Amino acid sequence: MTTTATTLKGQPLDRNVLDSMLRRRMFYTPSFEIYGGVSGLYDYGPPGCALQANIVDIWRKHFILEEDMLEVDCSVLTPHEVLKTSGHVDKFADWMCKDPKNGEILRADHFVEDVLETRLRGDKEARGEKIEEKEEADAKKKKKKTKGQAAVKLDDDVVKEYESILAQIDNYNGEQLGDLIKKYDMRNAATGLQPSPPVSFNLMFQTSIGPSSNLAGYLRPETAQGQFLNFAKLLEFNTGSMPFASASVGKSYRNEISPRAGLLRVREFLMAEIEHFVDPEGNKKHHRFHEVEDIELALLDRHTQLSGLTTVKHVPIGKAVSEGIVDNETLGYFLARIHLFLKRIGVDQTKIRFRQHMANEMAHYAADCWDAELLTSYGWVECVGCADRSAYDLSVHSQKTGVPLIVRERLDEPKIIQEWEVDIEKKKFGPFFKKDGKTVEAAVLATTQEQREKFAKDLEANGKMVIDVPGVADGKVEVGQDLLKIEYRTRTENVREYTPNVIEPSFGIGRILYSLMEHNYWTRSSDGGDEARAVLSFPPSVAPTKVLIVPLSSNKDFAPFIRKLSQKLRTVGISSRIDDSSATIGKRYSRNDELGTPFGITIDFQTIKDGSVTLRERDSTRQVRAGEDEIVAAIKSLVDHSKSWADIESELPIFEGQELEIR
Amino acid sequence: MTTTATTLKGQPLDRNVLDSMLRRRMFYTPSFEIYGGVSGLYDYGPPGCALQANIVDIWRKHFILEEDMLEVDCSVLTPHEVLKTSGHVDKFADWMCKDPKNGEILRADHFVEDVLETRLRGDKEARGEKIEEKEEADAKKKKKKTKGQAAVKLDDDVVKEYESILAQIDNYNGEQLGDLIKKYDMRNAATGLQPSPPVSFNLMFQTSIGPSSNLAGYLRPETAQGQFLNFAKLLEFNTGSMPFASASVGKSYRNEISPRAGLLRVREFLMAEIEHFVDPEGNKKHHRFHEVEDIELALLDRHTQLSGLTTVKHVPIGKAVSEGIVDNETLGYFLARIHLFLKRIGVDQTKIRFRQHMANEMAHYAADCWDAELLTSYGWVECVGCADRSAYDLSVHSQKTGVPLIVRERLDEPKIIQEWEVDIEKKKFGPFFKKDGKTVEAAVLATTQEQREKFAKDLEANGKMVIDVPGVADGKVEVGQDLLKIEYRTRTENVREYTPNVIEPSFGIGRILYSLMEHNYWTRSSDGGDEARAVLSFPPSVAPTKVLIVPLSSNKDFAPFIRKLSQKLRTVGISSRIDDSSATIGKRYSRNDELGTPFGITIDFQTIKDGSVTLRERDSTRQVRAGEDEIVAAIKSLVDHSKSWADIESELPIFEGQELEIR
Repeated sequence: MTTTATTLKGQPLDRNVLDSMLRRRMFYTPSFEIYGGVSGLYDYGPPGCALQANIVDIWRKHFILEEDMLEVDCSVLTPHEVLKTSGHVDKFADWMCKDPKNGEILRADHFVEDVLETRLRGDKEARGEKIEEKEEADAKKKKKKTKGQAAVKLDDDVVKEYESILAQIDNYNGEQLGDLIKKYDMRNAATGLQPSPPVSFNLMFQTSIGPSSNLAGYLRPETAQGQFLNFAKLLEFNTGSMPFASASVGKSYRNEISPRAGLLRVREFLMAEIEHFVDPEGNKKHHRFHEVEDIELALLDRHTQLSGLTTVKHVPIGKAVSEGIVDNETLGYFLARIHLFLKRIGVDQTKIRFRQHMANEMAHYAADCWDAELLTSYGWVECVGCADRSAYDLSVHSQKTGVPLIVRERLDEPKIIQEWEVDIEKKKFGPFFKKDGKTVEAAVLATTQEQREKFAKDLEANGKMVIDVPGVADGKVEVGQDLLKIEYRTRTENVREYTPNVIEPSFGIGRILYSLMEHNYWTRSSDGGDEARAVLSFPPSVAPTKVLIVPLSSNKDFAPFIRKLSQKLRTVGISSRIDDSSATIGKRYSRNDELGTPFGITIDFQTIKDGSVTLRERDSTRQVRAGEDEIVAAIKSLVDHSKSWADIESELPIFEGQELEIR
Repeated sequence: MTTTATTLKGQPLDRNVLDSMLRRRMFYTPSFEIYGGVSGLYDYGPPGCALQANIVDIWRKHFILEEDMLEVDCSVLTPHEVLKTSGHVDKFADWMCKDPKNGEILRADHFVEDVLETRLRGDKEARGEKIEEKEEADAKKKKKKTKGQAAVKLDDDVVKEYESILAQIDNYNGEQLGDLIKKYDMRNAATGLQPSPPVSFNLMFQTSIGPSSNLAGYLRPETAQGQFLNFAKLLEFNTGSMPFASASVGKSYRNEISPRAGLLRVREFLMAEIEHFVDPEGNKKHHRFHEVEDIELALLDRHTQLSGLTTVKHVPIGKAVSEGIVDNETLGYFLARIHLFLKRIGVDQTKIRFRQHMANEMAHYAADCWDAELLTSYGWVECVGCADRSAYDLSVHSQKTGVPLIVRERLDEPKIIQEWEVDIEKKKFGPFFKKDGKTVEAAVLATTQEQREKFAKDLEANGKMVIDVPGVADGKVEVGQDLLKIEYRTRTENVREYTPNVIEPSFGIGRILYSLMEHNYWTRSSDGGDEARAVLSFPPSVAPTKVLIVPLSSNKDFAPFIRKLSQKLRTVGISSRIDDSSATIGKRYSRNDELGTPFGITIDFQTIKDGSVTLRERDSTRQVRAGEDEIVAAIKSLVDHSKSWADIESELPIFEGQELEIR
């Protein structure tokens, strides 16, 4: 499962170099680092925080505004009963095993993966095959764990078995993982022992609400439940009309067993979730599907994975739905919209695929599910889930609380219904059966149309009927015609009631953010020949800061120009930062390329004479020079993507004066 | 402490009517309501969510962008050790008492307040004084609790005592509250018994992090700690220059003892906090203080409150600082900026005051603190705190972790320092004292300049010195001249090191949001004479939705005009909603006034002929009519507050055609 990661320009990507740059520039930093840190918890510094805000802002425009979704902001603290009903208390868990000697806690699927990958690497080595750079680096890191694992050649069949297991690693439950560990005698390298059989570990953080500690609660594992519980109110807010979607952006929590993989597996994370409520009748059509049907997606379906492969098919979403690869139009519509969103924020188009969940892997509520996965140095990473949760959540909450979570739809043509109906004579029925009254009544009301027809005949013929009621008397109960009536009647229904199904696109903002940083990262060698310089080529709309203002020196005459320029940029809604430090202009631009700022403005002595400034573009390092207002207008059109840098170069004079210094 | 609340137009405010409207329109709703709800937890529906987003957006522009603050996003989950060091584990608590019979848990200060207010009301009644409407309503609600409390006349002295206690209710600790309960024989109305003496209840939600349950953690009670822990990195990000501020917007948690008061006392809430780091030398001057010094604030200082009064002084902030009412310029600067922010989002200027904390009331870390309080139907509500936390937090975290959280400032002129210095002969010292080595060394290094001078003489005279070291030998330790040297030396310092002080403006977004809804609420009587209609007169920049598009009917010919208009509005960044329901135009506008939407556009048959539409202003219900583009431009200028409605009326033709129907 290892891959050779590359930068935006196809260079080999050295994750350690990138990571140390990201931390140095405070895109992120381990939380509580001066206290030694807590694994799986990270803080975003100013550029990371701005990047996150921009991604969320574009997400809101792309989804909520574009489709008039109803945004809500619900509580993170959630009482036990809600998550018991939703199934999370019982089923939201990972498989965990323990080393019997040193007590180390291992996530079972990760452990199996590690062991098999190590063996496959050893096999390659023994066969004298070239091990790719990345694999080698990984192997080095794992040396401590895999010491004593020599380069052992495996049988060809065994290699195939291992590869097949790895291709469907997400498909195994705890017992199956335990069986694999035994069958292939997998041992924890630290102790040389097989870990204990996997047990389930619930991933929710628990707490208690209120002073008397009697109300158990959890931190929500997803934002979805709050949206479901508000369904009836949201439907009313939407003046009763269907379909509609709610949406929510907020933090969720998962108590990961042993988080590694940096920003990709964290215990606290920002989610953006949409719950699109749709009528289950009519094949879940979507009225805007025609707008997206030609968009081609890279699909990895369930069958391909089960056959042990990871080959992607490039298919227009229209075709994928009509051929049944993707279940329905609404699901397909959102897959395409997710694709467009990822493209818009600057995800590398060659590093996206949509992978269908396998049966065992799906969340307990899902009817079908596709993940948008992004390729990073950690391999393919699930960044967006798009699940068809069917009517599961609304049904269970409604059953538990007795509150109807349904849509009542006025029928265009009333529906004529003919059927056998039962009328209980309440006044006599209850007193007659006494304590068994409710049980017998329930049994009568649960009868099928066929049974009712037969009972009606019995009543007419004998004045009584005999019904099976387990647990009452000898299980047979006689009911006389004075206690109930059964009649065949015709009635007209003007309203149809149904529980909507839910299509749920669910975005892990932190994972998208990290992948985006990898996808936009590359290095360029400087003219001077010293070490390669890092660049983060974010699209202007996503970049944390849009413009860096760089005065040539700390000369006081530049101050009014700096102030005026940053004021003008602020007025057109563009964020800028000033770097008037004493570093050379080249160094300052270089620092800024690392921060991903797309544009730089230099203020020099010519500015004082004629008000002109130079504008530098990050990726090409080319420059134009013009008056302040022209430059501000140029930046505005670049940031809202209405013009490209080539357009600007054709409109404004190229500036080459200081190129060497500024590159 | 009760007050007669009024609407924006000075009408008496009926909170029950407002509340039911806010819930009906889904500004907010109790979380998990279909499960019976959990007190102190609320969800925001679409308009509440949009209102919150707009307040936060303006906050970011007003503070973060305007002053180049460094925004960070830190973990909510916080390990025990961090909050132990910050003092929250020991001191972040309220006083709680218990009814000995029914086990009811009471917050001690609220209990004392309730009992005294009830008695004062009884006294007024006995004296035949008029009880204000609001008080009466409150009394009715509390009837169950206060049953058996007759209208008893109190001595004039007792009335004064009670009023004085209420004026400084926040100033008492648990023991003092317990004394008051005994002294005035306060009893829980439900049982007729005195509650138990107050005990401290920590307000943090606890959880454990990781699978082995061994890392205790809490949900953060404030965003501040994450900012402090990142101080060194933030300073470096700011290229070492001071002063600077960090900022953070995020949820915090407090496990309130028995939350009432709706959105004002909740267990999960959005905070926006600024930590402004400033050099403690030089009186905490602020370089932009001159921009705000003439702004007049309503101040209620500590002395006034201690004398049992609540009289506000209207003072320009410049004068307040120069007279020492407010401690320093930086604190004063932020009080003025907070005032401007509250004004900008539409808080009623007559319902703001800044109240200084009393000594006992201040958080454990604060050196001085002022709250911006807003007047609501619940009385004065603390919405923004502005504390001088001194160097407290940075110092304790630095001490605990050994990581320096300081500023190193290059001195313009090197500083010449002459002093006695101690050099320990490490190689001999340790072996000589063995296990006591570190203790003796610490004692030697802790000596004062005077002591060192004396020891230096002893060493010279006798070749040894005798120093007090409690716990080692008999408490007197002899140190020979081979083990250390003490010399008077001159050295030059080029760098000054100091721990910055922190000024912290801390905003409770939810409380501001609720107060804003009360402040902008009023009712107008309709022409038809039926019941009063609610209006929420939010400023356009804050309003959840800016424009309602209302087609005259569901006629299909209107559809392309609706689509084009909403597209044009979206292009200029203005959110709109369409109401094409079958309700009358009047009803639709009325619904919309309740949602606080400032502008409405009607599309009618004239639109199909000439493309013109009418624009309605919410507060005046007056209308103008013009072409689509002119109307869109007008709305844009109204939303960014560059034009007033009066400007628009003078530029575009007034429309009076359908006024009756539309009012």
